[in-house]
Amino acid sequence: MIRSTENNEYYELTSPTKIPKASGFLWNDNMMIHMNCRGYAVAQFMQPEPAKYSHSPNLEAKTFMQPEQPYYAHHPGRFVFVKDEENGDIFSAPYEPVRVLPDNYTFAVGKNNIIWKVESNGVLIEMKLSLPKDDPYELWEVKVKNLSNKKRKLSIYPYYTVGYMSWMNQSGEYLEDIQAIVCSSITPYQKYQDYAKIKELNDKTFLLAEKKPFSWEVSQEVFEGEGGITLPTGIQEEALSKSDSRYEMPTAVFQYKLEMDVNEEQSYRFVFGPAKYDEDVTAVRNKYFEAENEAGEDGFVLAEKEYAKYIAEGSGCLQIKTPDAHLDNFVNHWLPRQIYYHGITNRLSTDPQTRNYLQDNMGMSYIKPSIARHAFVHALSQQESSGAMPDGITIHEDAELKYINQVPHTDHCVWLPICLSTYLDETNDYAILDEVVPFADGNEEATVMEHINRAMYWLINDRDERGLNYINQGDWCDPMNMVGYKGKGVSGWLTTASAYAFMIWADICEKNGLQDNSEKFRQEADKSNEVINKYLWDGEWYARGITDDNVVFGISKDKEGRIFLNSQGWALLSGAADEVKKEKLLKSVVDQLESPYGVEMLGPAYTAMREDVGRVTQKHPGSAENGSVYNHAAVFYIYALYTAGETENAYRLLRKMIPGPDLDDIIQRGQLPVFIPNYYRGAYRTIPRTAGRSSHLFNTGTVSWVYRCIVDGLFGVQGAKDGLRIQPQLPADWQEASVTRSFRGADIEIDIRREAGIRETELYVNGDLVEGNVMKDLKSGEKYKVLVKVQ
Amino acid sequence: MIRSTENNEYYELTSPTKIPKASGFLWNDNMMIHMNCRGYAVAQFMQPEPAKYSHSPNLEAKTFMQPEQPYYAHHPGRFVFVKDEENGDIFSAPYEPVRVLPDNYTFAVGKNNIIWKVESNGVLIEMKLSLPKDDPYELWEVKVKNLSNKKRKLSIYPYYTVGYMSWMNQSGEYLEDIQAIVCSSITPYQKYQDYAKIKELNDKTFLLAEKKPFSWEVSQEVFEGEGGITLPTGIQEEALSKSDSRYEMPTAVFQYKLEMDVNEEQSYRFVFGPAKYDEDVTAVRNKYFEAENEAGEDGFVLAEKEYAKYIAEGSGCLQIKTPDAHLDNFVNHWLPRQIYYHGITNRLSTDPQTRNYLQDNMGMSYIKPSIARHAFVHALSQQESSGAMPDGITIHEDAELKYINQVPHTDHCVWLPICLSTYLDETNDYAILDEVVPFADGNEEATVMEHINRAMYWLINDRDERGLNYINQGDWCDPMNMVGYKGKGVSGWLTTASAYAFMIWADICEKNGLQDNSEKFRQEADKSNEVINKYLWDGEWYARGITDDNVVFGISKDKEGRIFLNSQGWALLSGAADEVKKEKLLKSVVDQLESPYGVEMLGPAYTAMREDVGRVTQKHPGSAENGSVYNHAAVFYIYALYTAGETENAYRLLRKMIPGPDLDDIIQRGQLPVFIPNYYRGAYRTIPRTAGRSSHLFNTGTVSWVYRCIVDGLFGVQGAKDGLRIQPQLPADWQEASVTRSFRGADIEIDIRREAGIRETELYVNGDLVEGNVMKDLKSGEKYKVLVKVQ
Repeated sequence: MIRSTENNEYYELTSPTKIPKASGFLWNDNMMIHMNCRGYAVAQFMQPEPAKYSHSPNLEAKTFMQPEQPYYAHHPGRFVFVKDEENGDIFSAPYEPVRVLPDNYTFAVGKNNIIWKVESNGVLIEMKLSLPKDDPYELWEVKVKNLSNKKRKLSIYPYYTVGYMSWMNQSGEYLEDIQAIVCSSITPYQKYQDYAKIKELNDKTFLLAEKKPFSWEVSQEVFEGEGGITLPTGIQEEALSKSDSRYEMPTAVFQYKLEMDVNEEQSYRFVFGPAKYDEDVTAVRNKYFEAENEAGEDGFVLAEKEYAKYIAEGSGCLQIKTPDAHLDNFVNHWLPRQIYYHGITNRLSTDPQTRNYLQDNMGMSYIKPSIARHAFVHALSQQESSGAMPDGITIHEDAELKYINQVPHTDHCVWLPICLSTYLDETNDYAILDEVVPFADGNEEATVMEHINRAMYWLINDRDERGLNYINQGDWCDPMNMVGYKGKGVSGWLTTASAYAFMIWADICEKNGLQDNSEKFRQEADKSNEVINKYLWDGEWYARGITDDNVVFGISKDKEGRIFLNSQGWALLSGAADEVKKEKLLKSVVDQLESPYGVEMLGPAYTAMREDVGRVTQKHPGSAENGSVYNHAAVFYIYALYTAGETENAYRLLRKMIPGPDLDDIIQRGQLPVFIPNYYRGAYRTIPRTAGRSSHLFNTGTVSWVYRCIVDGLFGVQGAKDGLRIQPQLPADWQEASVTRSFRGADIEIDIRREAGIRETELYVNGDLVEGNVMKDLKSGEKYKVLVKVQ
Repeated sequence: MIRSTENNEYYELTSPTKIPKASGFLWNDNMMIHMNCRGYAVAQFMQPEPAKYSHSPNLEAKTFMQPEQPYYAHHPGRFVFVKDEENGDIFSAPYEPVRVLPDNYTFAVGKNNIIWKVESNGVLIEMKLSLPKDDPYELWEVKVKNLSNKKRKLSIYPYYTVGYMSWMNQSGEYLEDIQAIVCSSITPYQKYQDYAKIKELNDKTFLLAEKKPFSWEVSQEVFEGEGGITLPTGIQEEALSKSDSRYEMPTAVFQYKLEMDVNEEQSYRFVFGPAKYDEDVTAVRNKYFEAENEAGEDGFVLAEKEYAKYIAEGSGCLQIKTPDAHLDNFVNHWLPRQIYYHGITNRLSTDPQTRNYLQDNMGMSYIKPSIARHAFVHALSQQESSGAMPDGITIHEDAELKYINQVPHTDHCVWLPICLSTYLDETNDYAILDEVVPFADGNEEATVMEHINRAMYWLINDRDERGLNYINQGDWCDPMNMVGYKGKGVSGWLTTASAYAFMIWADICEKNGLQDNSEKFRQEADKSNEVINKYLWDGEWYARGITDDNVVFGISKDKEGRIFLNSQGWALLSGAADEVKKEKLLKSVVDQLESPYGVEMLGPAYTAMREDVGRVTQKHPGSAENGSVYNHAAVFYIYALYTAGETENAYRLLRKMIPGPDLDDIIQRGQLPVFIPNYYRGAYRTIPRTAGRSSHLFNTGTVSWVYRCIVDGLFGVQGAKDGLRIQPQLPADWQEASVTRSFRGADIEIDIRREAGIRETELYVNGDLVEGNVMKDLKSGEKYKVLVKVQ
């Protein structure tokens, strides 16, 4: 079963007969760890590029985070082997690698820690992982309790994967004086020019024990022996061998021997992480286990508290209460947490994609607007004076554009007004538009207003003779690199998105008193909408684009890739679709793209390469962009539905994004409702067996937009120049709902009630009926009570 | 125990109580497979860069072949699970992944196949791997025999790792009509320009069964279930589930059900490999299992025969018989095989390092001189007109210089005369010197003679004011990238090696009638030897070099890296060392570098970075170049000892290169005597526990030089301009030895006997005493019998 704990601090998975693939994650300013409920872990820290201290058993490729992370017996993990010294029985917590199904099992993903409780044959092992706020270290507490009605003799063996550190130089040893296993390696390089960087890396991995162990092991091979990872020989013996590791794969295992009375509990604490020098580990010992404050709390305890506070700072700007408790929990606790993660870590990249960086910071506008402000200005400082935005924003002086950021995409300018508008709605900080920011090329500088004007003109100029926007080697969602690489192909979506961006920018200009500018961009939006309807309406929906060779695609006569979601939703957003087209495209999406797990990005998924479309068709049907429920695309569609007043449609799809509270759903998706993944597998109509599976990738621009859907759409509590506009769009079967909105320093408690006989929404602020639907003259520090009566 | 089979076709490891890490390898024109005796495999095929069809469970880095290949539970392998249908007992052949110690176990590495015989509880599983001559396919035969005295009901499950093919697109299914599991994937790429290459790749993996299976499995996860790889759930059930794989890790498992009478034997055959289309697999079925010749032999059998013939073509130019049967076996069977492997595959690189390419083809001069000839000319066609040789030789039109070949090294020119001299000795083909070959830059072309002259002048010009050769970012053995990157540091070794190269070239010029040229280079050799003695003699041995900042290193006052082997041996080769220095350096090497596993490359191994020396000091002490028994360096020292008449010293060290016939030695080294690895772990004096371990990397320039040591040194049957020079250097305790030498088309049977009273070696050809020690006027096609009497 799964449940949220009473205080909603944890999502718990308990006592399943099958341990699924559910996972949770923690992060801080310098690291991220993704923990699988079976005990596997992927951890990365920044130095400044992402690096590992717990490695695979082979030389793994350096790449971006993988979807559907493959697990295997020797995958890095954090485990506690437990041996009954009287009968030799062995199990491991939380489950891997021994795989004894426990008598009781709880996996609890918390906001600031992750806890397992694993009971097997009268022994309870509780494992708790937390992080400090800054240090890239894992803080582990392992508790052992005798639940049986007799004394027990046990050995426990906390085991932390170190893995194949380096083919060039790896070793490890136990340092008696600080009770730590320290494993050393050297990152290989070829060119001497790279040495200066290499020598600064934190290439060591340490496991530091608070309590002195009975024995230890540093050689993976000696530890496993012929028993292997699933039943290590080292554990079958009286004591671990205390071997060092010399150019052998290191490991970090401690043994503690316990004689436990009935109900006795023992606790052990460890710090696991990277280091540069042995002395660093000594310093860790001093900081976490030796130093205490006046209250007698040591660094470990203080770090846990500090971290809880750090996470709490990302709690967002609204608390909701609706008939849907599961939604409430997700929106109140987990969604802002995931947005905050993006804003803090920038997805553990030093060169986030420009569109991601802008959207992640759009989300950050709800949580820490000062960070968002800085990011917008920083992004614009990398804009060229032509108005072109780069494919990625480098956020570290040594960073360079990598992977997909070396492939030219044409959509980046679009996101500037779209994302900035939320920042302005939330903060009313129109002064940002007057900030003077340099361009990346030459010595020119200009106001933010001028920067974004140029970005809009860049879009206006990058169109063909028909007025359709060139796609070059790709636009948003990165899927179609061969539509327009010859310089002719165009993107229907980008043309619509440009229209939407022009409109948003026109609104901002207007609010900022620049009527002429506003008018100009509205005209451009109209032009774009006109050509979209002229060249890309296929009869029942909008086509996706036109290739270099003038082939229109994403149309009814295509067998695969007939309909693309983005082309439909954005035509609602841009206003291209009139009422007739709207009804048609809505129906087409329901018929061809909706699935139990959400709305798919395109359909039918490609099963073979279509060379005039390109890369997306190489992806597996139902995975990533090829016919998956690609949540980032799906949430835009939902946003468009709210914008178009399609309340029921919008809510139905929104709700599918969050795994339900029932175990079957969790098992099919493989995921607890603690984050929204970048995709759920789609191709539901063609490959139903695997549809719904989570990518487990929690890096996604989806979450900022889900929050924006909740704020602007579902609850309709969007900021406006003169205050807070209140316009809820509750689903029909909700009789009431309430929301506490933190807004420009004010706390606003809003109750929404459905009342018979109401024609237009009625707004009562502190009891008084207010004209219109905007709360004006809000004062920072004040509390407001609002009653909203709706039809 | 280990033994060579009677016909010396196999080296066998039998019935150990512990299964070690021994391995063997097979190759053909398009692939290589390295098989570990426990069942793990590393296979690569060329398309044209090396690629895999049996993958790791994660995204593995593309890199050069790794030393001491790490194995782990899910490492790619080839296994047969066996289930007793009556009691459910399960084991796997050859050993992994179930790890039931068999009742009898044989691992037999053959020249053209590898065989396991694994007997467990009355069931014998025999697995045999062979290859075709061209196709990159594995040919497997699995035999099952009932050795018990009752009928048996069994299921056998041949299991072939497919692994994590691609994060972008992977799937697999069973094709009923051709009885094959075909798994598909698509190699990811980022830039559309790369697509043209990607689309040509053989990205599929197939396992084709001759006989119709009872059931099959294509999903790794379904196959393993909660039983895991060590006891798969699929096998515990009645039948495999016949699941397909859709963006899941594929696998290839068949189930056969058997009811076996006492002594009954059944045989199953499989083909495993890469493909581009499903139709390719149909073609494989037709070729290997359907088509038959007139004698009723099918393609599978014919391919095995053809492959045996192909391997036999690499049998070398001498067969020896000495009091040391182990040496005989190695030299007659395994050594030429390993040389042949290098010559055929170029180490599975499309850009072999220049020095490796030349030395590998020096070896090929003994086996297939026409290939060697082509290679020398090909290498020179990539020389610049300045005389400089590139760091790697591209041997495929799309190839480019990668990894270490992008780092400038200064030694490549040295190898031209050194390697060519063996080709000339063997073939007397001095006409090659008149071949006209273009330079890589501009339109110039010149004779081979002129090319090598320019290479020698390049070395002459690349010296400092003292006459010492610059090291730049490295010289031979690639270890020291920071000695001279500022442009000042020099290499003692390279100065000596240049002197040696000048001498060799002077000899060749002289033999080719170019006396003036010869004289010039002899003078240059003298000059180099002079400065070596002036600047680099440290009192008891030669220093290794002088850094950019004028620090001499590899000297007695250094704590680590005090003495380097290459600096000593080559000073013998070049003639720099006089008799007094020779005695001193020989003693220094014995005292400081000799170990039970051979002579170490430097000592004491560095334990920390020395920044004025560079990269070698990053390698682990005892591994690779940092204090290992680096066999390529060791064999040069041995060659130098033979050249210097140090017969006993030379033989003692030569013999240490080949693992002995006793199991303890095999277990410590982890290797059967079927190849010489590039290193054995060294640092014997500081890390004795791990000393002697084999790198298991069979790519090494060592082997050509071991053969040359046998030819030129031990048996002294080196070619000369006018015939075959016979000058044996047998160890003192050998009373006799014989060798059959294939030489320029003649077969020469040579018996060498020690006789009391002989003063100078006496040579009897077909019974007649011959003046001098050269057999002249040899006729191709003739047989000669030679008796050599020695002191």
